[in-house]
Amino acid sequence: MELLEQKILKEGKALGNNIVKVDSFLNHQIDINLLKSIGKEFYKRFEEENITKILTIEASGIAIASITALYFNVPVVFAKKTQSLNLDEDVYTNKVYSYTKNKYYDIKVSKKYLNKKDNILIIDDFLARGQAALGLYNIVKQSKGNLKGIGIVVEKGFQDGRKLLLEKEIRLESLAIVKKIQDGKILF
Amino acid sequence: MELLEQKILKEGKALGNNIVKVDSFLNHQIDINLLKSIGKEFYKRFEEENITKILTIEASGIAIASITALYFNVPVVFAKKTQSLNLDEDVYTNKVYSYTKNKYYDIKVSKKYLNKKDNILIIDDFLARGQAALGLYNIVKQSKGNLKGIGIVVEKGFQDGRKLLLEKEIRLESLAIVKKIQDGKILF
Repeated sequence: MELLEQKILKEGKALGNNIVKVDSFLNHQIDINLLKSIGKEFYKRFEEENITKILTIEASGIAIASITALYFNVPVVFAKKTQSLNLDEDVYTNKVYSYTKNKYYDIKVSKKYLNKKDNILIIDDFLARGQAALGLYNIVKQSKGNLKGIGIVVEKGFQDGRKLLLEKEIRLESLAIVKKIQDGKILF
Repeated sequence: MELLEQKILKEGKALGNNIVKVDSFLNHQIDINLLKSIGKEFYKRFEEENITKILTIEASGIAIASITALYFNVPVVFAKKTQSLNLDEDVYTNKVYSYTKNKYYDIKVSKKYLNKKDNILIIDDFLARGQAALGLYNIVKQSKGNLKGIGIVVEKGFQDGRKLLLEKEIRLESLAIVKKIQDGKILF
C-alpha cells in the first residue's frame, strides 16, 4: 500500500536493525485519516469473506480494528492482556510471548463474543515473529469460528511470522512489508 | 444521551452495587455504530473548542477516542500503561491507582505528541473515582497544553470522580450518568 509505505519512509524510524518505530502515526499518536485508508484497503481485500467480527488485541490493534470495522459494519472484539474485575470467567485463553516486552502473558476473550457462526478477520498493527497473531488464531480455534484471514499494517518480512502463519494455511494480508533495515534505512 | 442509556439498560449488567458491566458493546466487544453516535455527541458538545488532539488511555479508551476523532478530524494520542521498547524515554508521566485492577501503574505520553499549542480533549470510557482522568489531566499540565474538557461515556455518579475533576475547574461531559445501582438495577 503505497500511501502507507510513504508514511513509514517519511515518519517512521529504524532503531538498530530490528525495530520499526511508527509511534507518530500508528501506535502512540494515531493518524485517523491514514487509518481510514488502511480500513478501506482491508475492506477491499476481505469484502468477499462475509466478515461478522473483527478480532484484535489490546492496545495498539484497537484503533486500527475500530476504524476498519466501520467499513465492514461489524463489531470489534479485542483480546485482553490483563486480568480485570470486569472480565467474565468463562473465556478462551492462550499464552503469548512478547519479544518487545520480554515476557509471557495470557490473552483472553469472553466466550460470549466469538462462536462457530462467526467469520473472523484478525487485525493487528505489526507482524514480526507472529506470537500475538498465533495467540489470536488459537483463540479463534477454541471458538470454532471461521478464520477468514489476518490483516497486518506493518510486517517485518525479515522475521518468521509469515512462515509460521502460512504453515497453518492462514490467509495473510500485510499492507506494508519491511524487507530489511540497512544502515538506518527502512527498505520495502 | 438517550440511545446510550437505552443500550446500557438493555445490555449492561450491574454487578454488586458498584460495577456497571458494558463489555458487550463498549470495552471488550465494541459496537461501532454506537461509537459513531457517541463520537458525534462529543463533537456536538466540544465543536466550538478548536480541539487539536484527543488524549485517551489504553486500552478501553482507544476505540472511543478513535471514532470520536473522525468527527473532529484530529489525531489521537493514547497514554501507555506499560513499558515498551518502542516508547521514547522523553515522556510526560504520572502515577495512577486503578481500583478495578487494585494496583498503581505509571502512565506515559511521549513529549513529542502534546505541547502548549494543543487544545486537548480527554476521552475515556468510564469515570468512577477519577484516578485515570486526573492522571491524564496531570499529563496535559506537564505538556502546558490547553485542556478543553473531559468526555466520558459512562460516569458512575455515586463515586467521587466528578467532584475531584470539578475542583480543578475541568469541564466534564458525561454521556450517561449512573445515579446508583439498586437491587441489581442500573438507575440514571
